[in-house]
Amino acid sequence: MARSINLAVIPGDGIGPEVVAQGLKVLGAVLPADIKLETTEYALGAQRWHATGETLPDAELERLQSHDAILLGAIGDPSVPSGVLERGLLLKLRFAFDHYVNLRPSRLFPNTASPLAGEPQIDFVVVREGTEGPYVGNGGSMRTGTPAEVATEVSLNTAYGVERVVRDAFERAQARPRKKLTLVHKNNVLVHAGHLWSRTVERIGREYPEVTTDYLHVDAATIFMVTQPQRFDVIVTDNLFGDILTDLAAAITGGIGLAASGNINPAGAFPSMFEPVHGSAPDIAGTGKADPTATVLSVALLLRHLGHPAGAARIEEAVTADLAARSAATARTTDQIGDALAARVSG
Amino acid sequence: MARSINLAVIPGDGIGPEVVAQGLKVLGAVLPADIKLETTEYALGAQRWHATGETLPDAELERLQSHDAILLGAIGDPSVPSGVLERGLLLKLRFAFDHYVNLRPSRLFPNTASPLAGEPQIDFVVVREGTEGPYVGNGGSMRTGTPAEVATEVSLNTAYGVERVVRDAFERAQARPRKKLTLVHKNNVLVHAGHLWSRTVERIGREYPEVTTDYLHVDAATIFMVTQPQRFDVIVTDNLFGDILTDLAAAITGGIGLAASGNINPAGAFPSMFEPVHGSAPDIAGTGKADPTATVLSVALLLRHLGHPAGAARIEEAVTADLAARSAATARTTDQIGDALAARVSG
Ligand SMILES: CC(C)[C@H](C(=O)O)[C@@H](O)C(=O)O
Ligand SMILES: CC(C)[C@H](C(=O)O)[C@@H](O)C(=O)O
Repeated sequence: MARSINLAVIPGDGIGPEVVAQGLKVLGAVLPADIKLETTEYALGAQRWHATGETLPDAELERLQSHDAILLGAIGDPSVPSGVLERGLLLKLRFAFDHYVNLRPSRLFPNTASPLAGEPQIDFVVVREGTEGPYVGNGGSMRTGTPAEVATEVSLNTAYGVERVVRDAFERAQARPRKKLTLVHKNNVLVHAGHLWSRTVERIGREYPEVTTDYLHVDAATIFMVTQPQRFDVIVTDNLFGDILTDLAAAITGGIGLAASGNINPAGAFPSMFEPVHGSAPDIAGTGKADPTATVLSVALLLRHLGHPAGAARIEEAVTADLAARSAATARTTDQIGDALAARVSG
Repeated sequence: MARSINLAVIPGDGIGPEVVAQGLKVLGAVLPADIKLETTEYALGAQRWHATGETLPDAELERLQSHDAILLGAIGDPSVPSGVLERGLLLKLRFAFDHYVNLRPSRLFPNTASPLAGEPQIDFVVVREGTEGPYVGNGGSMRTGTPAEVATEVSLNTAYGVERVVRDAFERAQARPRKKLTLVHKNNVLVHAGHLWSRTVERIGREYPEVTTDYLHVDAATIFMVTQPQRFDVIVTDNLFGDILTDLAAAITGGIGLAASGNINPAGAFPSMFEPVHGSAPDIAGTGKADPTATVLSVALLLRHLGHPAGAARIEEAVTADLAARSAATARTTDQIGDALAARVSG
């Protein structure tokens, strides 16, 4: 357990700075006095790009690397062409820091409305691969803008990359009461990548005889997510399928205002990065309407990653209690929710 | 309007033959006496593959090409390695017959339970591209089965292929009361393919000033599908995203037992193919539990494509009436549902 936390903070765009402020507030409140928290803010995102044309200079990347972890708000603004900040900043960080485990827990908290009818039981974790697949940025276009244009996107998958994330997912499944791992892919169409994933799960599974495994095509997985979400315990999947499934998972557990994520480099060779699943939501930036809960829950993942499980649990209990006490009638501001959570964790 | 229909029938595997039988029953009942229906059955699927090793021989493909249209049940069996029949038969047909419009209407019928809470209004059409994207089968693996394996999947996208399907989607949007077209892609990550799609929608959109267009990333689209499905009118999207979204769309409209699809070659250079969205469901094959409604609705799409809109409408009305009269208490067999629908269309 580290006695100090040297945290890099990337507030980013839109509601990013607003929710990050609450995340830091709760982090400050939950940490025992003998753990020193040091934060360094990095001004990256749309403003920086407009001012300098930079998304993530190498020097900044190097400075970021010296931190224990990174807390990120949200990246993206309609004034920046789609892809520039996503590829040049967010994905660059995930790839440069080898965040091969993109961890996204999904749980329906009490007193939280799901768009699903009935009272669904939802408590699963998606282990999304973070450094391969169609996200590698390997593609291009020729005769661009002409009637003869051809554009490609190449999904790259390696035994090295698949095995390490599958192993991580088995470890997580092994540690949970139900011990169930579902591989999601599309191996009847994307046969090369898909069979690499299937073979890997089968092979590594032999080392985890207590873990039950099954397989779903990604299209079928979306059906089960809305008809039988209780069937899922741990899901391991490719970068793109994980992106899609975790937004759907967030939606059925009360919305992306509550969905946390960690971009994790388990070995610790690089700092891991924690961020809400939601985007920068420019339409509500500055209105105080953003729910900082997803960021606060991401701070819990950060604490667990850094070896402070008690602090993480305190935050999760505070969120559970806060949601239980919420009433639809009295909307609170971003800041008020942050204050309430900070009070609960320090109380 | 054709005075005869020369139909190829591929019953396929599992529940395929059971639901196709009902589709043909309803087709026979709805056609006026002066329209001659001729059907030819093609024994393709798992049995054929086990017996001969063939999925779709060239000679058969040529014979299939002589028909006005194809009705397909379902393809796939656990005894056949994943991908063999999908790539070698189903996708081979879609690609060989240039089915670039994969049409998948989604509508929540009255008296049909959705997993979504409340009473969602759902009535949209997905125009899924059918001949490009990650489905082209362009990929491979090296050092397969070793720790140094690399597997690729290449998504190929052309201006030619994107423009024709986008144009088709605009035509469909233009013909609907709400006249709204939503492009779904992931152009912030898959920038080359994604920007080709975005630019194409923008350009072709200028020819359809009455159609409102918007854009959603595929992950966000899954959220709206479960929180605000009424926002969708016509969706145009890539082959893989369309696969995923239409299973989710089927789930929220009462399940894949009701989801119809048409693999359409609009110009008519090749026969179009109509099939339920569901698979071969080997677990319920032979039990009489399969709902043939998806196949019957696919027959309606077939009739509309062949210039018999009145027959198509009769089938859709029959399905609406049948669903309205259904009670959860009295389950009917595949055959009984087929009989009821046949009686309604001929009554
Ligand atoms: C913003 C975007 C690049 C990102 C992704 O696709 O991974 C986001 O959707 C997410 O899920 O974190
Ligand atoms: C069986 C499979 C190849 C197919 C697809 O992926 O297109 C199916 O899921 C569908 O949606 O028709």
